[in-house]
Amino acid sequence: MNLVLASSGTVHGSAYLEYLLPTIDKLYKDVEEVLFIPFAQPGGISLDDYTDKVQLAFNSLGIEVKGLHEFDDYRLAIKNAKGIYVGGGNTFLLVSKLYCSGLWEVLKDAIKRGIPYLGTSAGTNIVGRSMQTTNDMPIVLPPSYTTMGVLPFNFNVHYLEPSKKSKHKGETRAERIKEFQCIEHTKVLGLKEGSWLRIKGDDIFLRGGKKAFWFEKGNVVQLEPNANLGQQKS
Amino acid sequence: MNLVLASSGTVHGSAYLEYLLPTIDKLYKDVEEVLFIPFAQPGGISLDDYTDKVQLAFNSLGIEVKGLHEFDDYRLAIKNAKGIYVGGGNTFLLVSKLYCSGLWEVLKDAIKRGIPYLGTSAGTNIVGRSMQTTNDMPIVLPPSYTTMGVLPFNFNVHYLEPSKKSKHKGETRAERIKEFQCIEHTKVLGLKEGSWLRIKGDDIFLRGGKKAFWFEKGNVVQLEPNANLGQQKS
Repeated sequence: MNLVLASSGTVHGSAYLEYLLPTIDKLYKDVEEVLFIPFAQPGGISLDDYTDKVQLAFNSLGIEVKGLHEFDDYRLAIKNAKGIYVGGGNTFLLVSKLYCSGLWEVLKDAIKRGIPYLGTSAGTNIVGRSMQTTNDMPIVLPPSYTTMGVLPFNFNVHYLEPSKKSKHKGETRAERIKEFQCIEHTKVLGLKEGSWLRIKGDDIFLRGGKKAFWFEKGNVVQLEPNANLGQQKS
Repeated sequence: MNLVLASSGTVHGSAYLEYLLPTIDKLYKDVEEVLFIPFAQPGGISLDDYTDKVQLAFNSLGIEVKGLHEFDDYRLAIKNAKGIYVGGGNTFLLVSKLYCSGLWEVLKDAIKRGIPYLGTSAGTNIVGRSMQTTNDMPIVLPPSYTTMGVLPFNFNVHYLEPSKKSKHKGETRAERIKEFQCIEHTKVLGLKEGSWLRIKGDDIFLRGGKKAFWFEKGNVVQLEPNANLGQQKS
């Protein structure tokens, strides 16, 4: 397997995907055209506009971007892809559209065959077991929350540590993850903005220079930058 | 109708429900026993412990609290209730349990009959059209996101205004609400912590001394404290 799974597409103070470009360049080494899955449509952006936005970011890498929606046969497009990118936005929308189009298996097969896969935000969530730890609003009802399960845990992307200074009384991320783990035993990785996982074969390295947070029922373990989660993933 | 729908059960610097006690006292005038629906289980708290927490808060009002889970026949308990409180926590969990137990109609009937109803957070969300604008994590999959529809709009509780200072790149509430309104035309009321709606008959007053935010496709209108939404609700 050959994946980059980022918490977010953008970090403060730089353009879309800019902070990730060196990493993306290595991931897509020898790939001339990337298949982009724009179904999460952040802010309701159109599929075409979202694809253009990605093309703009990939221009400096000399990579051509084609939106999945431009193809007549989605499954065939994924089967033939030499590189795949699933962008962020609304995870409920993305998951619903992947169910509607019956794309889970073909996407999972591509990843298992070693096709380079980039995910940001919602595109990272779907590589885990389920989307039950997304921060997004349930704007559509998918038939199931189950996602690819390429990794045996869930993500919480854009992860924020509880702030002692906050006067806000809505539940913190950690509290929400705890609620999830009262229902299911799946582990959850809290991945801060600017962090990503670099997965090569069985290695799962934490990159981006920040700590991450591993939630198991009742416990939170801090992971140091560059930790290899491949040793502790199940 | 006779409702108090609060954004949150707790505000910074005071105990659970403390800031609302004078309002609750008036709502439950002449009510000696309140039926509490604890199904949202914030932080995974047990149904008994959550009920005890509410009893503690209501002690100073001389009101007895009974948890719905203590009854054999949930529908009959709601039918016979003289006052109802639905507490906050996880909206997905609350909505799922209300579907499982078939309680929507009997709850709606009670509200329509004028039984005093208090909702906080998730308990406020369910009075709107759907739970599609909750901030909670989808820890369980309900059969539908449709809620009571006693009011012809949706809530976003614990509403936060976008901060210009924030370095966080996850979507803001306003962006998430915009994504929802790309899918459905339902209006959304962004209700800040410390705010509540006081509904009496056809009047829907904004209380708590804070502005609220009325989202319609493409537009945000600020509502001044004490505005009457009863004039503009549909």
